[in-house]
Amino acid sequence: MHLINGEPGALLAVGDRGLQYGDGLFETMPVQQGKALFLHRHLQRMRQGCRRLLIAEPNWTLFGAEAEQLAAQARQGVLKLIVTRGSGGRGYRLPNPATPTRIVSVHPATDYPAEFQQNGIHLHICRHRLPDNPPLAGIKHLNRLDQILARAEWQDPDIHEGLMLDSRDCVVEGTMSNVLIVQDGVVLTPPLLYSGVAGIARGLILELAEATQIPCRIEAFDLPQLLAADEVMVCNSVIGLWPVRSVVDRCWSVGPLTRRLMTLWQQRCRSELES
Amino acid sequence: MHLINGEPGALLAVGDRGLQYGDGLFETMPVQQGKALFLHRHLQRMRQGCRRLLIAEPNWTLFGAEAEQLAAQARQGVLKLIVTRGSGGRGYRLPNPATPTRIVSVHPATDYPAEFQQNGIHLHICRHRLPDNPPLAGIKHLNRLDQILARAEWQDPDIHEGLMLDSRDCVVEGTMSNVLIVQDGVVLTPPLLYSGVAGIARGLILELAEATQIPCRIEAFDLPQLLAADEVMVCNSVIGLWPVRSVVDRCWSVGPLTRRLMTLWQQRCRSELES
Repeated sequence: MHLINGEPGALLAVGDRGLQYGDGLFETMPVQQGKALFLHRHLQRMRQGCRRLLIAEPNWTLFGAEAEQLAAQARQGVLKLIVTRGSGGRGYRLPNPATPTRIVSVHPATDYPAEFQQNGIHLHICRHRLPDNPPLAGIKHLNRLDQILARAEWQDPDIHEGLMLDSRDCVVEGTMSNVLIVQDGVVLTPPLLYSGVAGIARGLILELAEATQIPCRIEAFDLPQLLAADEVMVCNSVIGLWPVRSVVDRCWSVGPLTRRLMTLWQQRCRSELES
Repeated sequence: MHLINGEPGALLAVGDRGLQYGDGLFETMPVQQGKALFLHRHLQRMRQGCRRLLIAEPNWTLFGAEAEQLAAQARQGVLKLIVTRGSGGRGYRLPNPATPTRIVSVHPATDYPAEFQQNGIHLHICRHRLPDNPPLAGIKHLNRLDQILARAEWQDPDIHEGLMLDSRDCVVEGTMSNVLIVQDGVVLTPPLLYSGVAGIARGLILELAEATQIPCRIEAFDLPQLLAADEVMVCNSVIGLWPVRSVVDRCWSVGPLTRRLMTLWQQRCRSELES
């Protein structure tokens, strides 16, 4: 199921700058009981992304209504929103006037084993480094070759995510998730000033931790610090929170703060569904 | 005029990874007298790009024939080739099997003033820096937000190109061109090991210089070196070679090596047309 600028159909003009240059943004969220979870937070992040990339803002009310329409039809799955700068402009120059393109689509949810939640996942350490690029850091834009090259590093089906570092050896994120560690009872997650995507789930988990007096800080850490951590977890809007069970030969069992955050996350999702 | 996988039409499936992730490559070249100039060099660079990005190679004979077909129909203009990884794959993971998408399109040529060739152009110095990313350096991929943000820095119609630097203050390229300088009688152009696109025109000009005993070297230089240079020029396949007339308040007249390279370039294009 797809809507392009509100019209059913899955074909886009090849002149669209989304294809020509990756000139746009996207959001992905789960659909449960006909509802797109945390839709307004995703639209809010996309709005910030539009401002950062100087993309003319689409009609957010309309875009939100289109997302709700497809979510209601699909009942469950994964909803993806894309906004692009639209067509036109000579080369890289911004088109003026510009009409952004809105794309909404729903896809079947990936059926992850319950094992991932219960016992955690295995992480690969990616050789591909995330380049420093502060003007693009934090936003979820359509230039994703770094993640594609990183994800192409492993085929082993027992590895479920890859850890991405930057040029200063700091941990940034997973290829499709944010990373949190527990160190001396404090939850840490990287600041994403130079690269990475500031995930909606990451933001919610930080809020949940703060609201329940779980000490948490946005703070850079490197790979040795992660390997020495008491607990490691990854999160995104679609998977929620997964414990990390191993990184190469360092192993963990599911820790108490991870369990607490997972419970808080599940409660938060339930209250979102009921709201 | 467009061909998508050989079929006339300008609509692409929104599930294509070219749109979803900028997961592909492109080439742009002039069409004159029904011929796409240096088509085989462009296909060759695209082939190298496919190998770097692990994109399944399209049928190059077919792709070349489609390009020649549209060039012959259009007679003149600018031909653009895009190859994407195609549709499919769960998230960033590479689809297997994968069928790449071939897109050929022809566009009207931009009518640049003759003045640009005769007296040169004015350059802006972009604040946006090119991030170091060796795995992507040199190839012409579809992740172009850096160029878009850099090009958005100026609206002044008297400025025709922007100079892009990297984090070590080295000159990398223009937003849509490669940069060459003349220093003590030697033509220098940056090595593009960390970022930038290794342009077809740049490669041809290096070959022409070598064949005619014009001293030239691939060597890094910074902005002060460029400002101190005797001559500065920019090149790409579509514009050919343009002298640079000014960068902020540093001005040049068109120098002898620039004139010689422009003549060699024009001769090379004529012989390509006649071949």
